[in-house]
Amino acid sequence: MNMRTSPKHVVIVGGGFAGLACARKLAKHDDIRVTLLDKNNYHQFQPLLYQVATAELGSSDVATSLRQVLRGHANVDVKMAEVMVVDPKTRTVTTKGGDTYQGDYLVLAAGSQANFFDTEGAEKCSMPLYSLEEAERLRSRVLAVFEEADNNPKLVNEGALNFVIVGGGPTGTELAGALADMINLTMTREYTDLAVKRARIYLVEHGHALLAPFSTEAHDYAARTLQRKGVQLRLGLEVKEVHADRVELSDGTSISTRTAIWAGGLMAAPLAEHSELPRGRGGRIDVQPDLTVEGFPGVYALGDFANIPGADGHPLPQLGSVAQQCGAWTATNILAEIAGKSRTAFRYHDKGIMAMIGRDAAVAEIGRKRHELEGPVAFAAWLGVHALLMTGVRSRIEAFIDWGWNYFSRTSPIQVLDRSNEKRINWQEDVDAGSSGPPPSVKTAK
Amino acid sequence: MNMRTSPKHVVIVGGGFAGLACARKLAKHDDIRVTLLDKNNYHQFQPLLYQVATAELGSSDVATSLRQVLRGHANVDVKMAEVMVVDPKTRTVTTKGGDTYQGDYLVLAAGSQANFFDTEGAEKCSMPLYSLEEAERLRSRVLAVFEEADNNPKLVNEGALNFVIVGGGPTGTELAGALADMINLTMTREYTDLAVKRARIYLVEHGHALLAPFSTEAHDYAARTLQRKGVQLRLGLEVKEVHADRVELSDGTSISTRTAIWAGGLMAAPLAEHSELPRGRGGRIDVQPDLTVEGFPGVYALGDFANIPGADGHPLPQLGSVAQQCGAWTATNILAEIAGKSRTAFRYHDKGIMAMIGRDAAVAEIGRKRHELEGPVAFAAWLGVHALLMTGVRSRIEAFIDWGWNYFSRTSPIQVLDRSNEKRINWQEDVDAGSSGPPPSVKTAK
Repeated sequence: MNMRTSPKHVVIVGGGFAGLACARKLAKHDDIRVTLLDKNNYHQFQPLLYQVATAELGSSDVATSLRQVLRGHANVDVKMAEVMVVDPKTRTVTTKGGDTYQGDYLVLAAGSQANFFDTEGAEKCSMPLYSLEEAERLRSRVLAVFEEADNNPKLVNEGALNFVIVGGGPTGTELAGALADMINLTMTREYTDLAVKRARIYLVEHGHALLAPFSTEAHDYAARTLQRKGVQLRLGLEVKEVHADRVELSDGTSISTRTAIWAGGLMAAPLAEHSELPRGRGGRIDVQPDLTVEGFPGVYALGDFANIPGADGHPLPQLGSVAQQCGAWTATNILAEIAGKSRTAFRYHDKGIMAMIGRDAAVAEIGRKRHELEGPVAFAAWLGVHALLMTGVRSRIEAFIDWGWNYFSRTSPIQVLDRSNEKRINWQEDVDAGSSGPPPSVKTAK
Repeated sequence: MNMRTSPKHVVIVGGGFAGLACARKLAKHDDIRVTLLDKNNYHQFQPLLYQVATAELGSSDVATSLRQVLRGHANVDVKMAEVMVVDPKTRTVTTKGGDTYQGDYLVLAAGSQANFFDTEGAEKCSMPLYSLEEAERLRSRVLAVFEEADNNPKLVNEGALNFVIVGGGPTGTELAGALADMINLTMTREYTDLAVKRARIYLVEHGHALLAPFSTEAHDYAARTLQRKGVQLRLGLEVKEVHADRVELSDGTSISTRTAIWAGGLMAAPLAEHSELPRGRGGRIDVQPDLTVEGFPGVYALGDFANIPGADGHPLPQLGSVAQQCGAWTATNILAEIAGKSRTAFRYHDKGIMAMIGRDAAVAEIGRKRHELEGPVAFAAWLGVHALLMTGVRSRIEAFIDWGWNYFSRTSPIQVLDRSNEKRINWQEDVDAGSSGPPPSVKTAK
């Protein structure tokens, strides 16, 4: 007679790149029970959120149902629940609904949130771009300011068509390029009696370069490309305060806008504060080279939720590819632990970085080689890279069609303003406390 | 020297099938100025909303930007604005923002809203399915009840997985079929530890047949097909009252549910009440055979907003094809008026009707011929019919991919729960006034 031990239970918090990669690898082992917890029932493809915000892709193109990705694996249980507290000693998590899940192994991959660095007004008056909900809200806002200005052209004088992007990293730079294309190629053709030419995109970056993780040549290329598209660069400046109607910069100037977008940095998701685990830079969980947390056997932290030591001792950047690889590595380490073998230190295989600046320019750096791509080639290369990364065959096929269609038709087709996502635009707040909403105007046909 | 008269101005209220068809036809005439007003910036493809509600299509597949459809026509101005009041004597409309538009011709195609026929609780506790926003809200609700029941299986005993559809016309019947397929084919595979088999769909219809506009044989076919898919039919019964946790029927029985869906009938949009125009059945504007309103020169009413007399004297049904045809006819009549010619009476060209009952069954009646289609043939035929009707090439291509993909993979891929659309589910309301929200349960891994 065989003695059978009960299956080991792995609890994974977060269905992003890291958590999902871990779950998919463990799913293939029938003798392990996996519970994947996420506050949403979908995995979002973060690198393309800026395309949702600029109406190039629909939400369903960048979101994949977690249940569907993991379907067919009877040993995996997906639960839609927000984890509020972690007890790392007992490897137990408690959800918002009061349910608890206890695992033999606990994998924390709860991701990140915007880091406002205590900038005054930023949390209240600027819009981050790190989740699908935030991307949808931003799209609604962008479309709404055009519609409202179309109804009341005076708003253009008040900066209704100004967009201020805070942060010149990959997110801010890619968004600036896509937004410039959207305005230059689509809006000018669709709002014929609105002064779309007066729309301005400002990119504020406290450093002196865009795309900091890239080489100096790439920094210059990104700056040149954005300037060619009409983006106003404000480098070496910090944002002092964000108001509902303007952004104040450290040089004393201010920019009128109703759309301040925060791409200024990331910190760990709020759960990190409720985990009793050691936290380092950005509030992220400090982990050992094998991705476990010192002093808490069976507890792993990974992806944007953790400070992951790189080969050179410096922490690795918050990138989808890092998250994906350390998710799979964690699964391997857990399998090793279960088999009574020893864990190994995570090694990140850097396949290079790439940024798309609008639809006709891209920069890629693979090893020491830099590629500046223009026109359809840029588009095709970037498409290929993302194709390899995306989860879900259907998402890929559909997103490809969207991309191809948009590229050749030079338009953003998903210009559908879903007002349920729209934060009220306070046209008068901070400007004229006595009135609310735009002043009504009367138009009569000639 | 030529004397040039100032261009005639046509104000169109509503960008649905009727208003858009009218605008597109007039757009080709540079000497006419057109203003199209809609509270949304998009045209929605109403016949497929039930597929959005059942997560088979994404919102962007059934919505097309009005600006994009009409782009390239400098004589057409699209304004996103909700019209609140109509002054038919001066052909002037006033928007929510206080703007006014006055036309030489006024085309009222403001569409419809749910008609609850004063059923108690229906407006508050049931969800209609006549707009994209409503379809998104319903999808969120359907996905949410599964997620919540997955977290708290006791809710299944309280009817969490019961769905009550009120109304057995095309909308209710098609929704019942699609929802049954979603539950039978997708949910059973994705919620492995939930008693999905206990999910029930009830279709309540006060008449004795489903798909009333079709023949008796089609009525029976629809009923048989739905029953085969497990739908519980409640024919010849009226809904007495809708509560947050149950629906009471006229035979004294009641069905526990948190998801009552109203497909029980249509009436004119609220604007009809603020138009000073003659109103008939369903609150719709009574029009003359040429689609003008008696006593108000230059004022047309069409689509679901009007009672349109058919050739036999009976009003025509509220159908997309009727709306589309009378939109184009109105444009022709306006062109005739401008040219000093006389208007002609609208003649509806009936191309037949079709209903899809789930993904593998359809019934079509063309002339006197009835076609019952099964399997891929049903799907293909129905696809072709809708392809011809849909606005926007891109929507068509994408929706086709979605349909094809879903059909062959037998799944509903867009299972993304967007909680911003979700009306709070009151699990305890009306049941236990002392508590709010589902009772917290504690789960511990074995």
